Amino acid sequence: MIFDVLTLFPEMIQEHCKHSILKRALEKGVFSVNTINPRDFTLNKHRKVDDTPYGGGAGMVLMAQPYVDAYESVERCENSVTVMLSPQGEPLNDKIVNELAQYEQIVMLCGHYEGFDERIREIIKPREISLGDFVLTGGELPALCLIDAVSRKIEGTLGKIESADEDSFSNGLIEYPHYTKPREYRGLQVPEVLLNGNHKEINEFRLQQSIERTKIKRPDLYEKYIKTCG
Amino acid sequence: MIFDVLTLFPEMIQEHCKHSILKRALEKGVFSVNTINPRDFTLNKHRKVDDTPYGGGAGMVLMAQPYVDAYESVERCENSVTVMLSPQGEPLNDKIVNELAQYEQIVMLCGHYEGFDERIREIIKPREISLGDFVLTGGELPALCLIDAVSRKIEGTLGKIESADEDSFSNGLIEYPHYTKPREYRGLQVPEVLLNGNHKEINEFRLQQSIERTKIKRPDLYEKYIKTCG
Repeated sequence: MIFDVLTLFPEMIQEHCKHSILKRALEKGVFSVNTINPRDFTLNKHRKVDDTPYGGGAGMVLMAQPYVDAYESVERCENSVTVMLSPQGEPLNDKIVNELAQYEQIVMLCGHYEGFDERIREIIKPREISLGDFVLTGGELPALCLIDAVSRKIEGTLGKIESADEDSFSNGLIEYPHYTKPREYRGLQVPEVLLNGNHKEINEFRLQQSIERTKIKRPDLYEKYIKTCG
Repeated sequence: MIFDVLTLFPEMIQEHCKHSILKRALEKGVFSVNTINPRDFTLNKHRKVDDTPYGGGAGMVLMAQPYVDAYESVERCENSVTVMLSPQGEPLNDKIVNELAQYEQIVMLCGHYEGFDERIREIIKPREISLGDFVLTGGELPALCLIDAVSRKIEGTLGKIESADEDSFSNGLIEYPHYTKPREYRGLQVPEVLLNGNHKEINEFRLQQSIERTKIKRPDLYEKYIKTCG
């Protein structure tokens, strides 16, 4: 998998990838992350990438030319998708993450400041994805979330591929509670069933806990689960 | 505003804050970001923070003691809130961001690996917040999103406070299209109305565009908007 990130802040992307599982997977060659800076494609001598909005208003708008030229400089393979990180997009979820993980290349457009000149959308026609109904300063954190979430689905990123299968949402439910040593901490005990070694009972307990938690914490997901499995 | 972040990867938080508007706002003292590493609170000689799950399964579970002790080392002011970043939480949205921006201190618990020992939740009783229905490797990216989204709401972070008021979702709609120079790019024109200087017409055009886009791209938000605004 190749991630190509168009961003005015390439160091935000690169530095983050030096940590944690991303670093290990990058070193193993499971995927690669490239950054392309639209500022390198400006045609004006001050390397300006933004200007004031037509019609007035606060903030600056990213100009079409440097973004479109930067985008067109990226070599795209056949099985590639272009994603714009924007609060206007479809909210990211596990289903979209799985869809994106099927591509060989994801080109990502990160905005900053007030937003993109609309003509960038009209020319590039990206799939627009949002992290949710809140606003961030730029698309860099969403791009990093996408890289993290998608790369977890690629074999070789996690230590054991099973870890991703047992995650929240992979069965439409939030996860069951986890416990590790010691058996008692500040008077709180690990549930007896987890200690008896009966895997059938353990699996039943965990599924029951997942269902109960989903019912309380995320009634919307619980409704969907009941409809599908009920 | 003080952000205290409990994390096993403090450099992920600190490095990100060296960029963009966060950097400027931090330098101006609009808010501060501290990191606390539970690894510094371990009592075992290998500074181990995780162990295998009771009942079996893939991945490692974060032990209660280092996390709880690290949490209790943080001095909390009266107007403080504790947030656990976890896929089990309520999905973050603009309303929650506004609520959190009212506090003077946000203590954040970032998980990593398979998850938290359940007793961490039972003892600390945090407000659980999720970025959405997908899974990330750790709570660090969600914590950075929270810091970014909340700090945008604090006066002094953005260049002009109006920028946040006109963002997507602040009126329940996604944003209208933006245009900047030049008037024509690759044959695509800036809409005439934005060039005529009539602010009433410009505002009407933008509201209409916001409504239309929300209707197409986010029918769920459109339904809510129609119900509220009649």
